[in-house]
Amino acid sequence: MTTDLNQLAVRLQDFASARNWGQFHTPKNLVMALAGEVGELVAEFQWLTPEQSKHLEPATFDRVRSELADVSLYLVRLADLLDVDLIEAANAKLDENERRYDPDLYRGSARKAPPLTS
Amino acid sequence: MTTDLNQLAVRLQDFASARNWGQFHTPKNLVMALAGEVGELVAEFQWLTPEQSKHLEPATFDRVRSELADVSLYLVRLADLLDVDLIEAANAKLDENERRYDPDLYRGSARKAPPLTS
Amino acid sequence: MTTDLNQLAVRLQDFASARNWGQFHTPKNLVMALAGEVGELVAEFQWLTPEQSKHLEPATFDRVRSELADVSLYLVRLADLLDVDLIEAANAKLDENERRYDPDLYRGSARKAPPLTS
Amino acid sequence: MTTDLNQLAVRLQDFASARNWGQFHTPKNLVMALAGEVGELVAEFQWLTPEQSKHLEPATFDRVRSELADVSLYLVRLADLLDVDLIEAANAKLDENERRYDPDLYRGSARKAPPLTS
Repeated sequence: MTTDLNQLAVRLQDFASARNWGQFHTPKNLVMALAGEVGELVAEFQWLTPEQSKHLEPATFDRVRSELADVSLYLVRLADLLDVDLIEAANAKLDENERRYDPDLYRGSARKAPPLTS
Repeated sequence: MTTDLNQLAVRLQDFASARNWGQFHTPKNLVMALAGEVGELVAEFQWLTPEQSKHLEPATFDRVRSELADVSLYLVRLADLLDVDLIEAANAKLDENERRYDPDLYRGSARKAPPLTS
Repeated sequence: MTTDLNQLAVRLQDFASARNWGQFHTPKNLVMALAGEVGELVAEFQWLTPEQSKHLEPATFDRVRSELADVSLYLVRLADLLDVDLIEAANAKLDENERRYDPDLYRGSARKAPPLTS
Repeated sequence: MTTDLNQLAVRLQDFASARNWGQFHTPKNLVMALAGEVGELVAEFQWLTPEQSKHLEPATFDRVRSELADVSLYLVRLADLLDVDLIEAANAKLDENERRYDPDLYRGSARKAPPLTS
């Protein structure tokens, strides 16, 4: 994994072990914690129009940034415990999607969900 | 953001613009896509015991890795559109949590949810 | 609980016990299953505009109806195991919200999220 | 739909129209609100063992009951707007699952996720 993500994973290991919280950090529990944080992120956007979501008010932006941080922390911790390299996995998935979704066939089409990924 | 996350963000920009899918990529929509992928990740773990979740069978591991990739792709794309540096935001949140949760007071305690973050 | 929800809860008890699946149906696991199904529901709406979401195409409508069924099944099963009467709890929450959100003060305002509930 | 669910749907219509909040209640937005509430429900269970999740402490139980109420309110409001009868849809799905998962073949097996539904 990238240096910065690795450093973050190590900080999270230290954070958990200093508090003896490693016992709670099973992948099952961490997936739930990730889902909880994503729920908070979704809640920030629920009443906004798509247009409003592009131009967040400062107070909303600060909460969104904080939720994105929480999501990232649990995602990195989970990936670390499962020994998954997020950057490598993400790039491999994107390679696959580039092959699967031919630009000429899919341009601008919302037939089926236009994915980053599927 | 780290070089690798930046490169991923740029690949996602190119991927979207080659297909003219940028029109679908509002933050509101991307948050929903992220939540959908996290739902798929949760589903992989729903019937596993916490212990089983630490030792995934190979087929499950492959699906989990693929879902972690999807979650990462949408998270990076969303952060890029909102101009949030995920690594910086995550480290700032962890700084805050280190101050908030004194190791001596919180050691091994599940009083209140033991968070990475809150 | 209403007769129909009670009947559904009993059908789900029978369904689980006929297959000896009660062992998997802890509240923790069922909450995850519920989250997974809600993720599938969210995915159906992720690329739609708010306006499009009001007028679903027939194929999308069928999938949405099926996901709403799945969400309902897990919600009823979970509430049954926790001995929560969903109708009673929902009405109590709505009583509370009617007091909290004075119509004259909150009319048409999106100051703070306009909730059904909070 | 059952009388009680219908009454709840009508209360929610009145609640929204008294505050002129109908404008925010597109299916897309309500699905997000539902996902946000399910995220809060998941968070209540994230650090509990499966066994602990069966025997909630009183304070946790009260929060869980409140979250189940919120989930129910958004689910009923969403189904009402989409004109989906939740009880009918849930029973139809369960009919289908009873056919699909033969009790003799699936008894006690966790091969593939043992679903209420799939």
